[in-house]
Amino acid sequence: MAVRCSSYFVPTLREDPAEAETLSHKLLLRAGYIRQLAAGIYSVLPLAQRSLAKIQRIVREEMDAIGGQEFYLPALHPADIWRETGRYDVIGDIMFRLEDRGGRDMVLGVTHEEVFTAIARDELRSYRQLPQIWYQIQPKFRDEPRAKSGLLRLRQFTMKDSYSFDVDAAGLDISYDRHADAYHKIFSRCGLRFLAVEDHSGTMGGSSSQEFMVRSDAGEDDVASCEACGYAANLEKAVSRLPPVEDPPADGDQPVKVSTPDQKTIADIAVFLDWAPERQIKTLVYMADRQPVLALVRGDHGLNEAKLAIAAGTSEVRPATADEIREVMGAGAGSLGPVGAPASIRMVADPALEGRRNLACGANEDDFHLTGVEPGRDFQPEWGDLRMVQAGEACSRCGKPLDVYRTIEVGHIFKLGTKYSKSMGATVLDEQGQAIPIVMGSYGIGIERILASAVELYGDENGIVLPPSIAPFGCLVLLVQPADPEQASAADRLVDEMEAAAIDVLVDDRVERPGVKFKDSEMIGIPARITLGRALAGGKVEVYDRRLRETREVPVEE
Amino acid sequence: MAVRCSSYFVPTLREDPAEAETLSHKLLLRAGYIRQLAAGIYSVLPLAQRSLAKIQRIVREEMDAIGGQEFYLPALHPADIWRETGRYDVIGDIMFRLEDRGGRDMVLGVTHEEVFTAIARDELRSYRQLPQIWYQIQPKFRDEPRAKSGLLRLRQFTMKDSYSFDVDAAGLDISYDRHADAYHKIFSRCGLRFLAVEDHSGTMGGSSSQEFMVRSDAGEDDVASCEACGYAANLEKAVSRLPPVEDPPADGDQPVKVSTPDQKTIADIAVFLDWAPERQIKTLVYMADRQPVLALVRGDHGLNEAKLAIAAGTSEVRPATADEIREVMGAGAGSLGPVGAPASIRMVADPALEGRRNLACGANEDDFHLTGVEPGRDFQPEWGDLRMVQAGEACSRCGKPLDVYRTIEVGHIFKLGTKYSKSMGATVLDEQGQAIPIVMGSYGIGIERILASAVELYGDENGIVLPPSIAPFGCLVLLVQPADPEQASAADRLVDEMEAAAIDVLVDDRVERPGVKFKDSEMIGIPARITLGRALAGGKVEVYDRRLRETREVPVEE
Repeated sequence: MAVRCSSYFVPTLREDPAEAETLSHKLLLRAGYIRQLAAGIYSVLPLAQRSLAKIQRIVREEMDAIGGQEFYLPALHPADIWRETGRYDVIGDIMFRLEDRGGRDMVLGVTHEEVFTAIARDELRSYRQLPQIWYQIQPKFRDEPRAKSGLLRLRQFTMKDSYSFDVDAAGLDISYDRHADAYHKIFSRCGLRFLAVEDHSGTMGGSSSQEFMVRSDAGEDDVASCEACGYAANLEKAVSRLPPVEDPPADGDQPVKVSTPDQKTIADIAVFLDWAPERQIKTLVYMADRQPVLALVRGDHGLNEAKLAIAAGTSEVRPATADEIREVMGAGAGSLGPVGAPASIRMVADPALEGRRNLACGANEDDFHLTGVEPGRDFQPEWGDLRMVQAGEACSRCGKPLDVYRTIEVGHIFKLGTKYSKSMGATVLDEQGQAIPIVMGSYGIGIERILASAVELYGDENGIVLPPSIAPFGCLVLLVQPADPEQASAADRLVDEMEAAAIDVLVDDRVERPGVKFKDSEMIGIPARITLGRALAGGKVEVYDRRLRETREVPVEE
Repeated sequence: MAVRCSSYFVPTLREDPAEAETLSHKLLLRAGYIRQLAAGIYSVLPLAQRSLAKIQRIVREEMDAIGGQEFYLPALHPADIWRETGRYDVIGDIMFRLEDRGGRDMVLGVTHEEVFTAIARDELRSYRQLPQIWYQIQPKFRDEPRAKSGLLRLRQFTMKDSYSFDVDAAGLDISYDRHADAYHKIFSRCGLRFLAVEDHSGTMGGSSSQEFMVRSDAGEDDVASCEACGYAANLEKAVSRLPPVEDPPADGDQPVKVSTPDQKTIADIAVFLDWAPERQIKTLVYMADRQPVLALVRGDHGLNEAKLAIAAGTSEVRPATADEIREVMGAGAGSLGPVGAPASIRMVADPALEGRRNLACGANEDDFHLTGVEPGRDFQPEWGDLRMVQAGEACSRCGKPLDVYRTIEVGHIFKLGTKYSKSMGATVLDEQGQAIPIVMGSYGIGIERILASAVELYGDENGIVLPPSIAPFGCLVLLVQPADPEQASAADRLVDEMEAAAIDVLVDDRVERPGVKFKDSEMIGIPARITLGRALAGGKVEVYDRRLRETREVPVEE
């Protein structure tokens, strides 16, 4: 059933809204797709709802195709179920918390591992009931500290989340691979250019998680990728190959303390001592779970805080304050080093420092440094990848230069293993009648992010451009003079034919200046436009491809 | 794509769960449709999800057919938008309230008049943009004090709510009538036996709200209806025709005080004074917004508290406590009357007392009553309908006896007028360029309630029976011996043919005792079952109609 603009609600805006930063945020507001209700909370208007419904249909079809069974779980949870896994206390302010009228602690679901695992625990008894893939498309609530960017970082959003339940790791591999396939199909069918970023965390090969990323400056993730061999990794995990550094031998067999008045930075020391940055140790103090940690990287390298958090086994780290540094180390930030640091402090060093000798670092005494320092001899760190990979460094697989860029995460698949089934007691009996914990996977797709990513990827200064599969309508029929009976009847015939071909049509039959109608038609993201105007007298209509921005005149019989 | 029970999650139960009270609650749990997460909060499992999706599709199609435009609004609202209409303070504990990480007051949406009206206010400018019908299918949160009965009274539930925006009352009448038509189609297509209950609140005819009700003892509403003429009304609004009462003349022209030691009830007085109940005034003290109100009904009549609340202009009333009664009236509950009641107390009398004379009531002094009382002479009440209609009373339209029974409300349509547009300043310019408030309507359907009502209506002791339009699958194919290659290949052919005919099929291919499979097939609400068993050798299958409980043997070529 064709929809007519004269009675349809599409509140387009002529000007960029002041609050919008990213392209998709601006365009989604200007095209009348969304309106803000509060920070990170948006009302979805009819055009966006049509687009999001098409995205959901694609997701549903592909999840059904891999044997997924659709559920719909509550958004409102009793706090107790989150206490079972301990996440009630560790998940922090991201979770909205409330009390019901009886004073019971409740929360809004940020995700659904707990609730799905509880159902599995209560209902699954035997290995013969496995595997299972359970999914839902359902609102999630996350109290993001920096909700912004329109539909990219929401406090309420729609997520397809699924969970797999298997007898063993081999079963999980199958469920995981099925999800990877389904995700490739989903994002391809939605018309996104995307890349799947593997998490090569171990040296064992075999990935335990994969992120699906769309390249965009509006994103909040950084990815290093290699066009030559296809390697791609989140910067929180990425590695690269470094050229070896030749360390000249030291003068003696222990560090030498040198006076370095007012020399506080790597660059200062490089000049003052003529000691190249790659021959220095950068020593940083971080707080992890309220404990100080020393992070050591090569002088010319950057630290990736997420890597440090992983190495420290915590979910978040923060730089220590100047006061904390002095209290812990007895010196200021410009004179720190691992040698002689208090034995109680954990110390993690990046592998770029391993096997090196004759390095320089702070002496933990203001205005003094050490030279001739040798890791393993003068201090004993834990070794862990901390280094921020830079664009242009060599791919660790093939040696070609890496590219580094921002991305939007639209999907994530993850091998949970038995983390939740063990903490919640979700077991089945195996063939021998022994209770074994169910092996789980968890998989997510942000529905609104698919729409926002497509707008970021393909939108231009005139408006939204969407792939036909997720556009609110397949075609716009624009009547220049809706009162002209010839145009009106031509429109009716066209609409009938297109609907017979299962193309959904929006008819702009508004009594408006043609300029306004053409501007709106550019803005609202409909892939094709057929204009019924003066050329109709010659039996012709104008067909416009929004993506290519090409117009052709064709006879009415298309 | 046919679904196979061997890998499908349908956790049926053999026993009635202890906590379940109503038929639908028991059967939905036993058939593996739902599981409880907390009071009034349920996880929807795959069978129920399929059924609810079909209900949503029907609702969507009929809403689109009347020109409805689908939105999706947030469930999480800033409290401020509820403060604009004053409902933040008056709506009470039914609304979940919380704070975000910045300490801002937030609420979970119990309904969406505020948010939709805000969009209309911000975006609609001219009468030429009207009418609009906006709808959504979306989760609502209500902290019900008595959440129970499975899917009938939920704290989180899915609602189709819509809102109409018109220039004037005539436009609202059209939008309202369209909704009434759509609702009739929706409930008919869902296979419900229902009735539309008009709100004949005034004497003017013309309804301003209509409830769509399914007759069921599991409901929480009472309806009076007349089979003869089709009159139907919620007991909160219902009226009936009473035979006239002949009052003998009083002895004097003022009330007479009589001693009635220990005579406290209408029945006591009927015997002690030989004064029939219909000649007495029943005097009840209620609290409305913390103010006492006297409610006066005929001695043999019951009070409907909802009617009193309407008459008192408040949302809720409660009976006064014994202490409150004595403080206000100076006497106990058994000796109350309107004559000489404190002038400061509001007094509402039911019309069955109007024009009467020589009545008896309490004297507001313990152990004393008055006789010869005449309303209008001895006290001056406000008149308002308070009486609870009883089954068997005469229909006010046609005089035939009324039926009274419990119902489940599955839908409600309501003329809001300008209540919200005025309080939130939602205006458009009319043809003369004058700002006029938008005239609104509000319309709701409880999605889960449709499913639960169908289970209540048609379910039996063996399980769920659903109309084909909303059943999770159209047909169950049951293989008695799934390992038998003849049965397996016959099943495959059958499934292919049924899918070609757009019938969705569930195949019970489990290696289970046939008794278990037949029991489950009765339980899970699938309208038709085809059994592939021994008769297949003779080219026959058994076809079973779940609703009629009839079995036929038919040749495989169906």
